[in-house]
Amino acid sequence: MNSQGPSPVLFFDTISAFQRSEALRAAIELDLFTHIAAGQTSVDQLAQSCQAAPRGVRILADYLTILGFLRKQNGRYELTPDTNTFLNRQSPAYLGGVTEFLLTPQLKECFAHLTAAVRRGGTAVSAEGTVSHDNPIWVAFARAMGPIMQLPAKLLAGLVGGNQQQPLRVLDVAAGHGLFGLAVAESYPRAHITALDWANVLAVANENAKRAGFADRYALLPGSAFDTDWGGPYDVVLLTNFLHHFDADTCTKLAAKVHAALAPNGRAITLEFIPDADRVNPPGTATFALTMLATTARGDAYTFAEYERIFAQAGFARNEFHALPPTTQQAVVSYKQ
Amino acid sequence: MNSQGPSPVLFFDTISAFQRSEALRAAIELDLFTHIAAGQTSVDQLAQSCQAAPRGVRILADYLTILGFLRKQNGRYELTPDTNTFLNRQSPAYLGGVTEFLLTPQLKECFAHLTAAVRRGGTAVSAEGTVSHDNPIWVAFARAMGPIMQLPAKLLAGLVGGNQQQPLRVLDVAAGHGLFGLAVAESYPRAHITALDWANVLAVANENAKRAGFADRYALLPGSAFDTDWGGPYDVVLLTNFLHHFDADTCTKLAAKVHAALAPNGRAITLEFIPDADRVNPPGTATFALTMLATTARGDAYTFAEYERIFAQAGFARNEFHALPPTTQQAVVSYKQ
Repeated sequence: MNSQGPSPVLFFDTISAFQRSEALRAAIELDLFTHIAAGQTSVDQLAQSCQAAPRGVRILADYLTILGFLRKQNGRYELTPDTNTFLNRQSPAYLGGVTEFLLTPQLKECFAHLTAAVRRGGTAVSAEGTVSHDNPIWVAFARAMGPIMQLPAKLLAGLVGGNQQQPLRVLDVAAGHGLFGLAVAESYPRAHITALDWANVLAVANENAKRAGFADRYALLPGSAFDTDWGGPYDVVLLTNFLHHFDADTCTKLAAKVHAALAPNGRAITLEFIPDADRVNPPGTATFALTMLATTARGDAYTFAEYERIFAQAGFARNEFHALPPTTQQAVVSYKQ
Repeated sequence: MNSQGPSPVLFFDTISAFQRSEALRAAIELDLFTHIAAGQTSVDQLAQSCQAAPRGVRILADYLTILGFLRKQNGRYELTPDTNTFLNRQSPAYLGGVTEFLLTPQLKECFAHLTAAVRRGGTAVSAEGTVSHDNPIWVAFARAMGPIMQLPAKLLAGLVGGNQQQPLRVLDVAAGHGLFGLAVAESYPRAHITALDWANVLAVANENAKRAGFADRYALLPGSAFDTDWGGPYDVVLLTNFLHHFDADTCTKLAAKVHAALAPNGRAITLEFIPDADRVNPPGTATFALTMLATTARGDAYTFAEYERIFAQAGFARNEFHALPPTTQQAVVSYKQ
């Protein structure tokens, strides 16, 4: 072995990758980035602000410098522009709350049993994984993911089409934080949004609707998407980050329910992680399938061809694929006619 | 936010980095790479060989393709050259056993409490962390890390100097797998190695000495490096991956014991992770400090200036620094005179 020979670098980087998640979580829990933004840039200043040991702060901040979150010069640390935008608690785009969802013990437990999930072909943690009726993880999700969903919500609203001054009846299935429906409400001043989700999650959507000033055009429909009577007809049904939790037959059953609830000119808009046919591109999209393997019984990152089949079997006339750069997600618009 | 604006990519990559470690561990546990090397290259073939579900294997193999461990073409997977060298169980350089040490629950537990370790300035898991007398982690370490230590051991033996045909008395402190002492035994046919470590770990070193055919030049000295009478005098004392577990005062105390055990022409050879003075370069070296914060009370990745001070205070006349490319480790040779 020499420097041109085989390299174990990728192996060691990957085996120790879990340390990166823990280091970032520690920094967020200690509010290290916010303190640096506030001008506490030396180890001693940061130790005092974070109420931590100088040795601990020094080693953590050096590690985060190596990862690219900080810059270090003459023994002082500064934030990169990205870190200042997303990890300084004073920033409106602060993402630190996302760790409460993405590093929750329940999610980590699913990945700790990944070998068993591969053997079984689905989550090894319970029969339903994270997709269970009263799972509090979805309240955490709704609260934590809001800040990062503003951009995809705006891009999705751009796919609704039609005259923005006309009335628009919108059903937001599994609304979560509600931001997708609310983005449509913002672009379509006469749109009326019905938000469907479990009651505990809908409370978050309702808060966001009130805060946005759309409470008078916002109705709540608590319950399971599968069992609830949806009413209707609707001009638009939003299916955002929902179908990936289920197998293709269940998706088809749900798509048929969407079809039945739509007016003749209606369309379903699906936001998803939709990899290319090779299932390994784009990388940031295709990696999502592993989360579905670890955390659900039969969910997946379906390709566009698979979504075409699902919506065709449910009676839809045609489907359009839309990439949504710079996000890692994609959309399918499915027309009833 | 647009594609030229701030990007949350590093944040999401880092928060989800733990998934990479789990995916690699799952693949090793299922022997996925070995089966691909043996010609099982489709999802269905791999599912049968790994005794796993096709859906599970497909998602895992796609994820490992994205990470760079595999290539995928026309629905079939193949190993990269690096993967074939290090993760195919039939390869002499197979590294899969390393996961038993690097992903042991005990180590992950230390990182799960990293925030508390930063506050405290040392491991939050117990008073001593992994550096406790009868900790079985070191037997796992000695067995798992052998394969990857062949190259650094050979490079370290190159620093011993002197006439290779003369007798050489070598003490290998905290010998572990014993490979450093054994590499010296191989280069110096008249060298006699004394291996010091806890009895349970020495059993591994002794196995390796017998396998290498050096049993007649290999003596065992069981016990703690701090409490045991080392005998002597020695021409060379090896301190490999040992000092990083302790604070500088303890290192100085130990260096003084080395000094006392050396013959007048003797030298100590220290193998370590020795970052530059900025403590963030080289990256693969400097990240090691975080492991010391998480797992030990007062250990560190010391700089060369710090090692110079430690050995000078212990009475050594001078120190030489040696990078050991392509490894991520470095060495210090400390001369008694």
